[in-house]
Amino acid sequence: MKSRTDYLTMNLPSRRGFVNITREVEQVVKASGVQEGMVLVNAMHISASVFINDDESGLHHDYDVWLEKLAPHAPTSQYRHNDTGEDNADAHLKRQVMGREVVVAVTEGKLDFGPWEQIFYGEFDGRRKKRVLIKVIGE
Amino acid sequence: MKSRTDYLTMNLPSRRGFVNITREVEQVVKASGVQEGMVLVNAMHISASVFINDDESGLHHDYDVWLEKLAPHAPTSQYRHNDTGEDNADAHLKRQVMGREVVVAVTEGKLDFGPWEQIFYGEFDGRRKKRVLIKVIGE
Amino acid sequence: MKSRTDYLTMNLPSRRGFVNITREVEQVVKASGVQEGMVLVNAMHISASVFINDDESGLHHDYDVWLEKLAPHAPTSQYRHNDTGEDNADAHLKRQVMGREVVVAVTEGKLDFGPWEQIFYGEFDGRRKKRVLIKVIGE
Repeated sequence: MKSRTDYLTMNLPSRRGFVNITREVEQVVKASGVQEGMVLVNAMHISASVFINDDESGLHHDYDVWLEKLAPHAPTSQYRHNDTGEDNADAHLKRQVMGREVVVAVTEGKLDFGPWEQIFYGEFDGRRKKRVLIKVIGE
Repeated sequence: MKSRTDYLTMNLPSRRGFVNITREVEQVVKASGVQEGMVLVNAMHISASVFINDDESGLHHDYDVWLEKLAPHAPTSQYRHNDTGEDNADAHLKRQVMGREVVVAVTEGKLDFGPWEQIFYGEFDGRRKKRVLIKVIGE
Repeated sequence: MKSRTDYLTMNLPSRRGFVNITREVEQVVKASGVQEGMVLVNAMHISASVFINDDESGLHHDYDVWLEKLAPHAPTSQYRHNDTGEDNADAHLKRQVMGREVVVAVTEGKLDFGPWEQIFYGEFDGRRKKRVLIKVIGE
Protein backbone atom coordinates (compact mmCIF):
# COMPACT_ATOMS: atom_id res chain seq x y z
CA MET A 1 0.00 0.00 0.00
CA LYS A 2 1.18 3.51 -0.84
CA SER A 3 0.18 6.62 1.08
CA ARG A 4 0.94 10.31 1.07
CA THR A 5 -0.12 13.13 3.40
CA ASP A 6 0.01 16.84 2.63
CA TYR A 7 -1.36 19.96 4.29
CA LEU A 8 -2.59 23.19 2.72
CA THR A 9 -2.48 26.44 4.64
CA MET A 10 -5.52 28.71 4.20
CA ASN A 11 -5.78 32.31 5.38
CA LEU A 12 -8.85 34.10 4.06
CA PRO A 13 -9.04 37.89 4.40
CA SER A 14 -12.81 37.79 5.12
CA ARG A 15 -14.97 36.01 7.67
CA ARG A 16 -16.56 33.78 5.03
CA GLY A 17 -15.51 32.54 1.61
CA PHE A 18 -15.05 29.57 -0.72
CA VAL A 19 -11.76 28.53 -2.35
CA ASN A 20 -11.39 25.94 -5.12
CA ILE A 21 -8.64 23.51 -4.04
CA THR A 22 -9.14 20.85 -6.75
CA ARG A 23 -5.79 21.58 -8.40
CA GLU A 24 -3.91 21.18 -5.13
CA VAL A 25 -5.60 17.83 -4.44
CA GLU A 26 -4.80 16.63 -7.99
CA GLN A 27 -1.14 17.45 -7.42
CA VAL A 28 -1.00 15.42 -4.20
CA VAL A 29 -2.68 12.45 -5.90
CA LYS A 30 -0.15 12.63 -8.75
CA ALA A 31 2.79 12.91 -6.36
CA SER A 32 1.53 9.90 -4.37
CA GLY A 33 1.87 7.56 -7.34
CA VAL A 34 -1.42 5.92 -6.32
CA GLN A 35 -3.30 4.48 -9.31
CA GLU A 36 -6.27 2.89 -7.49
CA GLY A 37 -7.36 4.12 -4.07
CA MET A 38 -9.04 6.94 -2.19
CA VAL A 39 -8.13 10.45 -1.19
CA LEU A 40 -9.46 12.09 1.97
CA VAL A 41 -9.62 15.90 2.06
CA ASN A 42 -10.74 17.54 5.31
CA ALA A 43 -10.72 20.84 7.14
CA MET A 44 -8.52 20.55 10.24
CA HIS A 45 -10.48 23.35 11.92
CA ILE A 46 -14.01 23.04 13.23
CA SER A 47 -15.42 26.29 11.82
CA ALA A 48 -14.51 25.40 8.21
CA SER A 49 -15.64 22.84 5.63
CA VAL A 50 -14.41 20.87 2.67
CA PHE A 51 -17.14 20.02 0.17
CA ILE A 52 -17.72 19.23 -3.49
CA ASN A 53 -19.98 21.31 -5.67
CA ASP A 54 -20.05 23.70 -8.62
CA ASP A 55 -17.42 26.38 -9.35
CA GLU A 56 -20.05 29.06 -10.02
CA SER A 57 -19.92 32.38 -8.19
CA GLY A 58 -23.71 32.87 -8.19
CA LEU A 59 -24.12 29.54 -6.40
CA HIS A 60 -21.48 30.47 -3.85
CA HIS A 61 -23.41 33.66 -3.16
CA ASP A 62 -26.58 31.56 -2.73
CA TYR A 63 -24.77 29.25 -0.26
CA ASP A 64 -23.64 32.24 1.77
CA VAL A 65 -27.13 33.78 1.95
CA TRP A 66 -28.74 30.42 2.71
CA LEU A 67 -26.30 29.45 5.47
CA GLU A 68 -26.72 32.87 7.04
CA LYS A 69 -30.48 32.25 7.05
CA LEU A 70 -30.17 28.76 8.57
CA ALA A 71 -27.57 29.82 11.19
CA PRO A 72 -27.29 33.64 11.46
CA HIS A 73 -24.07 35.18 12.73
CA ALA A 74 -25.86 37.99 14.62
CA PRO A 75 -26.98 38.61 17.24
CA THR A 76 -23.96 36.72 18.58
CA SER A 77 -25.56 36.67 22.03
CA GLN A 78 -28.13 34.12 20.81
CA TYR A 79 -25.48 31.37 21.09
CA ARG A 80 -24.23 30.04 24.40
CA HIS A 81 -20.88 29.12 22.79
CA ASN A 82 -20.21 32.84 22.39
CA ASP A 83 -20.34 33.27 26.19
CA THR A 84 -16.81 31.79 26.13
CA GLY A 85 -15.58 35.02 24.47
CA GLU A 86 -15.90 33.69 20.90
CA ASP A 87 -18.21 35.19 18.27
CA ASN A 88 -18.11 32.19 15.91
CA ALA A 89 -20.83 29.81 17.12
CA ASP A 90 -22.64 30.27 13.80
CA ALA A 91 -19.51 29.05 11.98
CA HIS A 92 -19.63 25.73 13.89
CA LEU A 93 -23.27 25.32 12.78
CA LYS A 94 -22.69 26.31 9.15
CA ARG A 95 -19.79 23.87 8.93
CA GLN A 96 -22.08 20.97 9.89
CA VAL A 97 -24.43 21.76 6.98
CA MET A 98 -21.58 21.89 4.46
CA GLY A 99 -19.55 19.02 5.96
CA ARG A 100 -16.02 18.49 7.27
CA GLU A 101 -14.57 16.25 4.60
CA VAL A 102 -14.84 14.53 1.27
CA VAL A 103 -13.54 11.14 0.19
CA VAL A 104 -12.85 10.87 -3.54
CA ALA A 105 -12.06 7.78 -5.59
CA VAL A 106 -8.70 7.66 -7.36
CA THR A 107 -8.99 5.63 -10.58
CA GLU A 108 -6.13 5.18 -13.06
CA GLY A 109 -4.15 7.77 -11.11
CA LYS A 110 -6.79 10.51 -11.29
CA LEU A 111 -9.67 11.97 -9.26
CA ASP A 112 -12.67 9.97 -10.49
CA PHE A 113 -15.04 12.90 -10.93
CA GLY A 114 -18.32 13.63 -12.67
CA PRO A 115 -18.45 16.54 -15.13
CA TRP A 116 -18.94 19.38 -12.63
CA GLU A 117 -17.35 18.13 -9.41
CA GLN A 118 -14.83 20.53 -7.87
CA ILE A 119 -13.43 20.50 -4.33
CA PHE A 120 -13.89 23.61 -2.18
CA TYR A 121 -12.62 24.88 1.11
CA GLY A 122 -15.47 26.70 2.88
CA GLU A 123 -14.42 29.25 5.47
CA PHE A 124 -16.94 30.49 8.06
CA ASP A 125 -14.60 32.21 10.52
CA GLY A 126 -11.62 33.47 8.56
CA ARG A 127 -8.94 36.14 8.95
CA ARG A 128 -6.55 33.63 10.50
CA LYS A 129 -4.45 30.64 9.48
CA LYS A 130 -6.11 27.24 9.12
CA ARG A 131 -5.13 23.96 7.49
CA VAL A 132 -6.58 21.38 5.14
CA LEU A 133 -5.37 17.77 5.22
CA ILE A 134 -5.01 15.67 2.06
CA LYS A 135 -4.33 11.96 2.49
CA VAL A 136 -4.07 9.45 -0.35
CA ILE A 137 -4.01 5.69 0.18
CA GLY A 138 -3.99 2.92 -2.41
CA GLU A 139 -1.73 1.21 -4.88
CA MET B 1 -4.55 -4.45 -1.97
CA LYS B 2 -7.62 -5.22 -4.08
CA SER B 3 -9.88 -2.60 -5.62
CA ARG B 4 -12.90 -2.42 -7.86
CA THR B 5 -14.76 0.52 -9.42
CA ASP B 6 -18.27 0.46 -10.85
CA TYR B 7 -20.74 3.07 -11.99
CA LEU B 8 -24.54 3.06 -11.79
CA THR B 9 -26.62 5.07 -14.22
CA MET B 10 -29.64 6.84 -12.74
CA ASN B 11 -32.42 8.55 -14.71
CA LEU B 12 -35.38 9.54 -12.57
CA PRO B 13 -38.63 10.56 -14.32
CA SER B 14 -39.36 13.27 -11.72
CA ARG B 15 -37.44 16.26 -10.40
CA ARG B 16 -36.98 14.70 -6.97
CA GLY B 17 -36.90 11.14 -5.65
CA PHE B 18 -35.08 8.51 -3.59
CA VAL B 19 -33.85 5.14 -4.89
CA ASN B 20 -32.55 2.28 -2.74
CA ILE B 21 -29.20 1.17 -4.23
CA THR B 22 -28.08 -1.14 -1.41
CA ARG B 23 -28.38 -4.29 -3.54
CA GLU B 24 -26.21 -2.80 -6.30
CA VAL B 25 -23.51 -1.84 -3.78
CA GLU B 26 -23.60 -5.33 -2.25
CA GLN B 27 -23.05 -6.85 -5.68
CA VAL B 28 -19.97 -4.69 -6.33
CA VAL B 29 -18.53 -5.58 -2.91
CA LYS B 30 -19.05 -9.28 -3.64
CA ALA B 31 -17.51 -9.01 -7.11
CA SER B 32 -14.47 -7.19 -5.66
CA GLY B 33 -13.48 -10.16 -3.52
CA VAL B 34 -12.60 -7.73 -0.72
CA GLN B 35 -13.06 -9.28 2.74
CA GLU B 36 -11.82 -6.38 4.91
CA GLY B 37 -11.88 -2.80 3.63
CA MET B 38 -14.10 0.14 2.78
CA VAL B 39 -16.54 1.00 0.03
CA LEU B 40 -17.12 4.57 -1.13
CA VAL B 41 -20.47 5.37 -2.79
CA ASN B 42 -20.96 8.88 -4.16
CA ALA B 43 -23.13 10.88 -6.51
CA MET B 44 -21.04 12.06 -9.48
CA HIS B 45 -23.40 14.99 -10.01
CA ILE B 46 -23.65 18.02 -7.76
CA SER B 47 -27.43 18.24 -7.52
CA ALA B 48 -27.81 14.68 -6.16
CA SER B 49 -26.90 12.83 -2.96
CA VAL B 50 -25.96 9.42 -1.67
CA PHE B 51 -26.99 8.86 1.95
CA ILE B 52 -27.87 6.11 4.41
CA ASN B 53 -31.19 6.00 6.19
CA ASP B 54 -34.45 4.08 6.49
CA ASP B 55 -36.33 2.44 3.60
CA GLU B 56 -39.68 3.84 4.69
CA SER B 57 -41.84 5.79 2.26
CA GLY B 58 -43.36 8.04 4.94
CA LEU B 59 -39.88 9.17 5.96
CA HIS B 60 -38.95 9.85 2.33
CA HIS B 61 -42.03 12.04 2.06
CA ASP B 62 -40.93 13.85 5.24
CA TYR B 63 -37.44 14.40 3.79
CA ASP B 64 -38.93 15.88 0.65
CA VAL B 65 -41.23 18.28 2.53
CA TRP B 66 -38.45 19.26 4.94
CA LEU B 67 -35.83 19.91 2.26
CA GLU B 68 -38.35 21.97 0.31
CA LYS B 69 -38.88 24.05 3.46
CA LEU B 70 -35.13 24.50 4.12
CA ALA B 71 -34.30 25.29 0.47
CA PRO B 72 -37.44 25.97 -1.60
CA HIS B 73 -37.38 25.42 -5.37
CA ALA B 74 -39.62 28.40 -6.13
CA PRO B 75 -39.47 31.25 -6.73
CA THR B 76 -36.43 30.28 -8.82
CA SER B 77 -35.50 33.96 -9.13
CA GLN B 78 -34.48 34.04 -5.44
CA TYR B 79 -31.20 32.29 -6.35
CA ARG B 80 -28.37 34.02 -8.22
CA HIS B 81 -27.24 30.64 -9.62
CA ASN B 82 -30.45 30.55 -11.63
CA ASP B 83 -29.39 33.74 -13.47
CA THR B 84 -27.10 31.41 -15.48
CA GLY B 85 -30.22 29.91 -17.11
CA GLU B 86 -30.53 27.01 -14.64
CA ASP B 87 -33.54 26.48 -12.36
CA ASN B 88 -31.79 24.04 -10.01
CA ALA B 89 -30.04 26.19 -7.39
CA ASP B 90 -32.24 24.63 -4.70
CA ALA B 91 -30.98 21.17 -5.72
CA HIS B 92 -27.37 22.23 -4.98
CA LEU B 93 -28.50 23.35 -1.52
CA LYS B 94 -30.59 20.27 -0.76
CA ARG B 95 -27.70 18.01 -1.76
CA GLN B 96 -25.47 19.63 0.88
CA VAL B 97 -27.97 18.78 3.65
CA MET B 98 -28.23 15.14 2.55
CA GLY B 99 -24.55 14.71 1.62
CA ARG B 100 -22.55 13.63 -1.45
CA GLU B 101 -21.20 10.30 -0.32
CA VAL B 102 -21.08 7.50 2.18
CA VAL B 103 -18.16 5.32 3.23
CA VAL B 104 -19.17 1.89 4.52
CA ALA B 105 -17.02 -0.71 6.26
CA VAL B 106 -16.64 -4.08 4.54
CA THR B 107 -16.19 -6.83 7.15
CA GLU B 108 -15.95 -10.54 6.30
CA GLY B 109 -16.88 -9.69 2.71
CA LYS B 110 -20.11 -7.86 3.56
CA LEU B 111 -21.43 -4.33 4.19
CA ASP B 112 -21.01 -3.93 7.95
CA PHE B 113 -24.44 -2.44 8.63
CA GLY B 114 -26.72 -1.81 11.58
CA PRO B 115 -30.24 -3.25 11.49
CA TRP B 116 -31.90 -0.49 9.43
CA GLU B 117 -29.10 0.97 7.33
CA GLN B 118 -29.86 1.17 3.61
CA ILE B 119 -28.06 3.19 0.92
CA PHE B 120 -30.09 5.70 -1.10
CA TYR B 121 -29.57 7.81 -4.15
CA GLY B 122 -31.27 11.17 -3.61
CA GLU B 123 -32.21 13.07 -6.74
CA PHE B 124 -33.02 16.78 -6.56
CA ASP B 125 -32.88 17.70 -10.26
CA GLY B 126 -33.88 14.64 -12.24
CA ARG B 127 -35.29 13.85 -15.66
CA ARG B 128 -31.79 13.32 -17.04
CA LYS B 129 -28.97 10.78 -16.83
CA LYS B 130 -26.63 10.89 -13.87
CA ARG B 131 -24.11 8.48 -12.38
CA VAL B 132 -23.19 6.99 -9.01
CA LEU B 133 -19.63 5.76 -8.33
CA ILE B 134 -18.93 2.67 -6.21
CA LYS B 135 -15.30 2.02 -5.24
CA VAL B 136 -14.15 -0.83 -3.02
CA ILE B 137 -10.63 -1.06 -1.58
CA GLY B 138 -9.20 -3.61 0.82
CA GLU B 139 -8.01 -7.17 1.00
CA MET C 1 -2.75 -4.13 4.43
CA LYS C 2 -3.79 -4.20 8.08
CA SER C 3 -7.32 -3.71 9.32
CA ARG C 4 -9.22 -3.75 12.58
CA THR C 5 -12.93 -3.43 13.38
CA ASP C 6 -14.44 -2.58 16.75
CA TYR C 7 -17.90 -1.63 17.97
CA LEU C 8 -18.92 0.70 20.79
CA THR C 9 -22.22 0.27 22.57
CA MET C 10 -24.07 3.49 23.40
CA ASN C 11 -27.11 3.79 25.63
CA LEU C 12 -28.03 7.37 26.48
CA PRO C 13 -30.54 7.99 29.30
CA SER C 14 -32.11 10.96 27.43
CA ARG C 15 -33.67 11.40 24.01
CA ARG C 16 -30.83 13.62 22.80
CA GLY C 17 -27.18 14.06 23.76
CA PHE C 18 -23.57 14.22 22.63
CA VAL C 19 -20.75 11.92 23.82
CA ASN C 20 -17.04 12.42 23.15
CA ILE C 21 -15.68 9.13 21.77
CA THR C 22 -12.22 10.36 20.68
CA ARG C 23 -10.39 8.31 23.32
CA GLU C 24 -12.13 5.11 22.23
CA VAL C 25 -11.22 5.71 18.58
CA GLU C 26 -7.60 6.43 19.53
CA GLN C 27 -7.43 3.10 21.36
CA VAL C 28 -8.70 1.19 18.33
CA VAL C 29 -6.17 2.93 16.07
CA LYS C 30 -3.36 2.05 18.48
CA ALA C 31 -4.49 -1.57 18.76
CA SER C 32 -4.65 -1.87 14.96
CA GLY C 33 -0.93 -1.21 14.57
CA VAL C 34 -1.72 0.94 11.51
CA GLN C 35 0.85 3.71 11.00
CA GLU C 36 -0.49 5.22 7.74
CA GLY C 37 -4.12 4.82 6.75
CA MET C 38 -7.67 5.89 7.49
CA VAL C 39 -10.20 5.23 10.21
CA LEU C 40 -13.95 5.23 9.57
CA VAL C 41 -16.26 5.96 12.52
CA ASN C 42 -20.01 5.73 11.91
CA ALA C 43 -23.30 5.42 13.73
CA MET C 44 -24.87 2.04 12.94
CA HIS C 45 -28.33 3.45 13.65
CA ILE C 46 -30.18 5.89 11.46
CA SER C 47 -31.37 8.30 14.13
CA ALA C 48 -27.84 9.00 15.43
CA SER C 49 -24.72 10.75 14.12
CA VAL C 50 -20.95 10.68 14.35
CA PHE C 51 -19.35 14.07 13.75
CA ILE C 52 -16.25 16.12 14.56
CA ASN C 53 -16.44 19.43 16.35
CA ASP C 54 -15.58 21.23 19.58
CA ASP C 55 -15.81 19.72 23.07
CA GLU C 56 -17.58 22.75 24.50
CA SER C 57 -20.87 22.36 26.39
CA GLY C 58 -22.24 25.74 25.29
CA LEU C 59 -21.82 24.75 21.66
CA HIS C 60 -23.54 21.42 22.28
CA HIS C 61 -26.46 23.33 23.77
CA ASP C 62 -26.49 25.55 20.65
CA TYR C 63 -26.52 22.47 18.39
CA ASP C 64 -29.47 21.04 20.30
CA VAL C 65 -31.51 24.27 20.10
CA TRP C 66 -30.62 24.79 16.44
CA LEU C 67 -31.48 21.23 15.36
CA GLU C 68 -34.76 21.45 17.22
CA LYS C 69 -35.51 24.63 15.26
CA LEU C 70 -34.58 23.08 11.90
CA ALA C 71 -36.44 19.80 12.56
CA PRO C 72 -38.76 20.06 15.61
CA HIS C 73 -39.69 16.93 17.51
CA ALA C 74 -43.27 18.08 18.21
CA PRO C 75 -45.96 17.98 17.08
CA THR C 76 -45.03 14.41 16.15
CA SER C 77 -48.10 14.25 13.90
CA GLN C 78 -46.44 16.62 11.42
CA TYR C 79 -44.31 13.72 10.11
CA ARG C 80 -45.71 10.90 8.01
CA HIS C 81 -42.99 8.55 9.31
CA ASN C 82 -44.62 8.75 12.73
CA ASP C 83 -47.82 7.21 11.31
CA THR C 84 -45.90 3.90 11.52
CA GLY C 85 -46.12 4.12 15.33
CA GLU C 86 -42.72 5.81 15.75
CA ASP C 87 -42.24 9.27 17.26
CA ASN C 88 -38.69 9.75 15.97
CA ALA C 89 -39.03 11.20 12.45
CA ASP C 90 -37.27 14.37 13.63
CA ALA C 91 -34.27 12.25 14.70
CA HIS C 92 -33.87 10.95 11.13
CA LEU C 93 -33.84 14.56 9.90
CA LYS C 94 -31.44 15.87 12.55
CA ARG C 95 -29.03 13.04 11.84
CA GLN C 96 -28.77 14.13 8.18
CA VAL C 97 -27.68 17.64 9.22
CA MET C 98 -25.00 16.30 11.59
CA GLY C 99 -23.91 13.37 9.39
CA ARG C 100 -23.58 9.59 9.75
CA GLU C 101 -19.83 9.18 9.72
CA VAL C 102 -16.37 10.66 9.74
CA VAL C 103 -13.22 9.45 8.03
CA VAL C 104 -10.01 10.50 9.78
CA ALA C 105 -6.42 10.24 8.53
CA VAL C 106 -4.03 8.07 10.55
CA THR C 107 -0.48 9.45 10.27
CA GLU C 108 2.50 8.02 12.15
CA GLY C 109 0.11 5.83 14.13
CA LYS C 110 -2.12 8.65 15.37
CA LEU C 111 -5.34 10.49 14.49
CA ASP C 112 -4.11 13.35 12.28
CA PHE C 113 -6.15 16.10 13.90
CA GLY C 114 -6.21 19.89 14.01
CA PRO C 115 -6.02 21.60 17.40
CA TRP C 116 -9.70 21.36 18.36
CA GLU C 117 -10.99 18.31 16.52
CA GLN C 118 -12.82 15.80 18.71
CA ILE C 119 -15.11 12.95 17.64
CA PHE C 120 -18.68 12.89 18.97
CA TYR C 121 -21.56 10.50 18.99
CA GLY C 122 -24.78 12.47 18.52
CA GLU C 123 -27.93 10.80 19.80
CA PHE C 124 -31.35 12.03 18.64
CA ASP C 125 -33.55 9.14 19.80
CA GLY C 126 -31.92 7.63 22.86
CA ARG C 127 -32.98 5.56 25.86
CA ARG C 128 -32.02 2.35 24.05
CA LYS C 129 -28.90 0.48 22.95
CA LYS C 130 -27.17 1.54 19.76
CA ARG C 131 -23.74 0.88 18.25
CA VAL C 132 -20.88 2.79 16.69
CA LEU C 133 -18.51 1.09 14.22
CA ILE C 134 -14.79 1.88 14.12
CA LYS C 135 -12.78 0.47 11.21
CA VAL C 136 -9.10 1.13 10.60
CA ILE C 137 -7.33 0.21 7.36
CA GLY C 138 -3.73 0.92 6.34
CA GLU C 139 -0.22 -0.24 6.96
